[in-house]
Amino acid sequence: MRLTDLGEKEIVRRLSKIIPIGDDAAVLEMDKDISDRFIVVSTDMFYEKTHRLPGMTMEQIGNYIVCSNFSDIAAMGARPIAFLLAYGCSDQEFSDFEKVINSVRQRCEFYGARFIGGDTKQTEQLCLTGISIGTTNRPVFRSGANVGDVIAVTGTIGDAGLGVEILLRGIDFRTENSIKNSVIRKAFEPEARVNEGISIGNFATSMTDVSDSLALSLYDVSEQSNVGMEIDLMKLPLSENAVKLADRFGVDILEYALYTGGDYELLFTANPGDIDRINKINATVVGRVTQNGIIAVDGNERIKIRKDGYEHFRKNCCIE
Amino acid sequence: MRLTDLGEKEIVRRLSKIIPIGDDAAVLEMDKDISDRFIVVSTDMFYEKTHRLPGMTMEQIGNYIVCSNFSDIAAMGARPIAFLLAYGCSDQEFSDFEKVINSVRQRCEFYGARFIGGDTKQTEQLCLTGISIGTTNRPVFRSGANVGDVIAVTGTIGDAGLGVEILLRGIDFRTENSIKNSVIRKAFEPEARVNEGISIGNFATSMTDVSDSLALSLYDVSEQSNVGMEIDLMKLPLSENAVKLADRFGVDILEYALYTGGDYELLFTANPGDIDRINKINATVVGRVTQNGIIAVDGNERIKIRKDGYEHFRKNCCIE
Repeated sequence: MRLTDLGEKEIVRRLSKIIPIGDDAAVLEMDKDISDRFIVVSTDMFYEKTHRLPGMTMEQIGNYIVCSNFSDIAAMGARPIAFLLAYGCSDQEFSDFEKVINSVRQRCEFYGARFIGGDTKQTEQLCLTGISIGTTNRPVFRSGANVGDVIAVTGTIGDAGLGVEILLRGIDFRTENSIKNSVIRKAFEPEARVNEGISIGNFATSMTDVSDSLALSLYDVSEQSNVGMEIDLMKLPLSENAVKLADRFGVDILEYALYTGGDYELLFTANPGDIDRINKINATVVGRVTQNGIIAVDGNERIKIRKDGYEHFRKNCCIE
Repeated sequence: MRLTDLGEKEIVRRLSKIIPIGDDAAVLEMDKDISDRFIVVSTDMFYEKTHRLPGMTMEQIGNYIVCSNFSDIAAMGARPIAFLLAYGCSDQEFSDFEKVINSVRQRCEFYGARFIGGDTKQTEQLCLTGISIGTTNRPVFRSGANVGDVIAVTGTIGDAGLGVEILLRGIDFRTENSIKNSVIRKAFEPEARVNEGISIGNFATSMTDVSDSLALSLYDVSEQSNVGMEIDLMKLPLSENAVKLADRFGVDILEYALYTGGDYELLFTANPGDIDRINKINATVVGRVTQNGIIAVDGNERIKIRKDGYEHFRKNCCIE
């Protein structure tokens, strides 16, 4: 059964059995749904030609659109409470459509949020726009970093970028499938650092997520806070599997850690006195906030970090 | 200067001079931005191939995406307070992009709301997703209509649908340009009934907007409220120019009033005792809520209203 066999009204009727829709807008109520002082709202698009990795399943697409959106909410130190999805596609099987919707619903539940509505429209390529809503009593901006603060990141970085590279080059590592898979999985199934974001939100001076690259995120915080950033390359948190794979692949994992995106980790700054709180959430201190310049320290060498990463509206930015 | 000459980061930097962006999410604060008990959130997409009328300007596209979104907020009886825009496009002139953004900003201001953020991504066709946020102390749903209520609509209906028809058929009425223009203008430059929605929100028992057709909106309310609807065809509010033009064109204006969309008027039900409040906002009583059936009364005749109007995922639903 394809979408054009059903028509929009029938699609919406079927959807209403999965998510509570049926009005012109979704409603959130104070004290019941919202108990914090600030509401944060964000939107992030997924476009088939640009974002869909070869072999990416409908379920993974559903997961991806929720994660990339909730990552923005986490980066504000907020708790996601609600999600909406504007779903544009050409004609497709209803069962495929349903897979995305169910995956979105499950992912929202996983993060403790409600999937409350959206829109469906006919487009040529799959074009999803996620809308996420969160709440917090202490929003963390990119603009609050102070000279002398420490810089930290959650998880490991570079995995997703390396995974995409391996995937697009079609490299086959038969003997090390489990290693390869763990790295590639991060590109296909990123996670939003929701719990970490809420914890970090209690003390961080600035925060953003690492969606396009660590380098671009450093520049973002630097520009908004009017400070410099100094990163110790030896301290960058790398996964054991990514290091092994980069070694086999003959590439520099640090290049991936600095200049590729898709890891959806959180980059934040904090007062050095908060080091115990940073350790508690397993984040890694990677450097410190300076007066100016975006610098990588590599032993005795000091290198300028390039303003480089994934950027839309750059020639060849799309995955063909 | 085209978007690919600038890159996403430079585009965002330029945008930040027009709208206040620079963080992962936009922030709204209780008591300052939000003083009502309920928040309503909605999303509506604009896709070039489906929604862009021949000759539609960038400014009109910006206007359209705000109006179609705020119409949903108005239909909940809420006041729009904020708007976000996810902007997908292939490479285009920055000046064209800027025209849409400025038009969105101006339209938001006109309706008393703030344009607070969004996303930009590279897509093949122009694909805009608007996200609107409103507040109210009394959200009006589609499900509250009671048997015996009167049914009313704001403004006039059928103009936009007739305008689109004339436009697509390329019909030339040189002698009556002003009439033709007034009808076509509603298709190009719809208005969201924001002030009317707020007023109606104080007393209506149910409400929705007429975006796809009066018929489909009647069915929506009927299904959600589990009631019937009876419309007196003679009472449907038609503009003088639409009547003249349909006459010249040799078509039945009532067909357009019932089965075409794009007028973005509000359809609502209310207790018959509230007739003075209905008159005060220049809405027109067009019928009454019954036990069941969606019926048009035409003198002594009773005709079943078809479940018909603009619907996505129907064959040939796109404007080619």
